[in-house]
Amino acid sequence: MTIIGIDPGSVSCGFGIIEFSNYQLSLVDTGLIKPKSQISNSTFIDRLKYLYDAISKVIRNYDIDETAVETQFYHNNAQSLMKLTQARTSVELAALNLNIPVFEYSPREIKLSVTGRGNATKKSVSFMVASILNINLNQTSTDISDALAVALCHIFKKKGQNATKNSPRNWREFIELNPERIINL
Amino acid sequence: MTIIGIDPGSVSCGFGIIEFSNYQLSLVDTGLIKPKSQISNSTFIDRLKYLYDAISKVIRNYDIDETAVETQFYHNNAQSLMKLTQARTSVELAALNLNIPVFEYSPREIKLSVTGRGNATKKSVSFMVASILNINLNQTSTDISDALAVALCHIFKKKGQNATKNSPRNWREFIELNPERIINL
Repeated sequence: MTIIGIDPGSVSCGFGIIEFSNYQLSLVDTGLIKPKSQISNSTFIDRLKYLYDAISKVIRNYDIDETAVETQFYHNNAQSLMKLTQARTSVELAALNLNIPVFEYSPREIKLSVTGRGNATKKSVSFMVASILNINLNQTSTDISDALAVALCHIFKKKGQNATKNSPRNWREFIELNPERIINL
Repeated sequence: MTIIGIDPGSVSCGFGIIEFSNYQLSLVDTGLIKPKSQISNSTFIDRLKYLYDAISKVIRNYDIDETAVETQFYHNNAQSLMKLTQARTSVELAALNLNIPVFEYSPREIKLSVTGRGNATKKSVSFMVASILNINLNQTSTDISDALAVALCHIFKKKGQNATKNSPRNWREFIELNPERIINL
């Protein structure tokens, strides 16, 4: 099963694709879509359409099965919240119009699932994502690590529903089952 | 030229279609899309997709040339503003994906254009829309009269750009040119 995690934004939208089979996780691809800088002299609506088209293309290219999207319901700036919401709606409709189910997760839910703390920093999220997927994210945008975190959160929740003794349902169980992944700093 | 005006909402979305040719306005059709009541047990995302599909169908059926959408940038409830924004993004993407240009107008701009006052009531807007189009809107939802008002606002603004002596650019000029439309109550 191939999951795409998306951290939507109209300036920068990160995505991360994870393959999950036989209780093994593997990274397929990641990317950043930057509607604002990729189309010059664009209106905001043009950027939403650009984002819609770009996500549609990624979903088709990688034969995605499910989409997990980070949702923000609060923001200290109402205009920013509205733009984020428009970007999110665009990527969700892109998936739905290709008949790919969409699952939404709040930032707190994602952080809790991946790091064990609902108020974890972006750096902690990136560290845990890198550790779980056994990849290096040091030079990678947090829009990408956040997108991978949404995908992992979805997989952990999903696995929780069909959990067996050997399948971790959260970071704690994952670490218990994979002690070699712990790095002592 | 056929214009669709849309007053987006996830519970009730009004639309009004106006034909504008040779400086004559005529009503083509109006309708209400009610995603919440029309699909039972739906999630909010399902309703956005339903709205997207319904507006796509209307645009294709009536061979629409341009779309005018009411935008709200403020609301005393952040959650309501977000849902309105998601509904608006859905109808805008439906139009854009059919290559129909989208134009956005704020509630104040629409009221000012149609009634001459930026803070007009919904009743005044409905009265002026009925008067301009020479139709009866007494028993009609304000979601529909608002949608027709957006379409009229777009036509007035557009005509303003190519105005001739004989073409009204706002309600005042329209009334001057059409004194028989004034009803003395």
